Amino acid sequence: MTNSTLLNQLNWRYATKKMDPTKVVPQDKLDIIIEAIRMAPTSSGTQPFELLVVTNPQKLEAIQKAAGGQSQITEGSHLLVFAAWDDYTTERIKEVVELNVKERGDLPMLHAYYDNLKSNYVPRSAEVNYAHAARQAYIALGVALVAAAEQEVDSTPMEGFDPAKVDKILGLKERGLRSVVLLPLGYRDPTGDWLLPMKKVRKPIDTIVTHVD
Amino acid sequence: MTNSTLLNQLNWRYATKKMDPTKVVPQDKLDIIIEAIRMAPTSSGTQPFELLVVTNPQKLEAIQKAAGGQSQITEGSHLLVFAAWDDYTTERIKEVVELNVKERGDLPMLHAYYDNLKSNYVPRSAEVNYAHAARQAYIALGVALVAAAEQEVDSTPMEGFDPAKVDKILGLKERGLRSVVLLPLGYRDPTGDWLLPMKKVRKPIDTIVTHVD
Repeated sequence: MTNSTLLNQLNWRYATKKMDPTKVVPQDKLDIIIEAIRMAPTSSGTQPFELLVVTNPQKLEAIQKAAGGQSQITEGSHLLVFAAWDDYTTERIKEVVELNVKERGDLPMLHAYYDNLKSNYVPRSAEVNYAHAARQAYIALGVALVAAAEQEVDSTPMEGFDPAKVDKILGLKERGLRSVVLLPLGYRDPTGDWLLPMKKVRKPIDTIVTHVD
Repeated sequence: MTNSTLLNQLNWRYATKKMDPTKVVPQDKLDIIIEAIRMAPTSSGTQPFELLVVTNPQKLEAIQKAAGGQSQITEGSHLLVFAAWDDYTTERIKEVVELNVKERGDLPMLHAYYDNLKSNYVPRSAEVNYAHAARQAYIALGVALVAAAEQEVDSTPMEGFDPAKVDKILGLKERGLRSVVLLPLGYRDPTGDWLLPMKKVRKPIDTIVTHVD
């Protein structure tokens, strides 16, 4: 197999279980991780989620309580919260079109494309649309995990939290957003993390890949 | 902002609309992309999806018909199909535990962890479990998009297809799988792709990021 920096990064990273609370992710590294999330591809370029970067100690403590007390939320220096649109609306799609027109020109094909998208998405239930938006946030999560590893920043993707509580703590419902996944950023505590010395476990390639040729 | 190869890769890639059917992704690059998918993190290490690598011309044509005739499916040299588990079952979780025991040893904490997971997941509806599994496939999709870009291979994530038809073409239902997203791999046709010369559009950072500090 030829060289791949990405594969080294994927092997370096792990779901950090204990972070060193004295270490802070520098602003330039944080900026790169956030920029990678912004550049992540999403369905039809809708970018149907927002990112909250939480450093407020009271908010972090409250979120930690809503997440079974997971220590990385307060040990890390920044908590990223991916919050998906609760629905696709005419107004939201209109804003996507306006941005595209601004950047690419007032092309008929742009309008036709998003008119079609609007007529498909808007009549669907909010729950179906939220589920679709949440999947897009997961693409960005995948990209963010790589970005953090590239910057040698540790991270821990977390699904184990009460979304309704986190939404309330961050005032997301009023903004038409729903929290999807949390990602504390920080630095591993090499002496205190039980997972660090353990072997990374992945299924063998032939159990997850089928060739249809 | 300091240097980031990843950001360059994210700017290089785009949802390729026309691929050159005479160009083939070399095996070593394909292997790296697949390995990145295998190494992508998933919830509790369950890796609740499989990957189909389709090169069979008849299957590709059938899938193309189930995907509104999108040309990249047959122009690319390989089609990746991400297929999520249709449910979390006792048997599937047992296999995850067995792999962990094999790799990490027969640790009581491993059994306790997955017993808890099993008692949470198995009673849930298949639809809820599938939705969760599909999200994990999207993490791997995000990683795969980066892997392809790193290898200077073009790709086009596709949600616009009839999953029931694709499941039938690939015999996924019998295997307890459901097709989630398609990813043709190949090489851009620089003269025939209308999207290539267009500016990449992303929302400004301040419209998608909120700092809570």
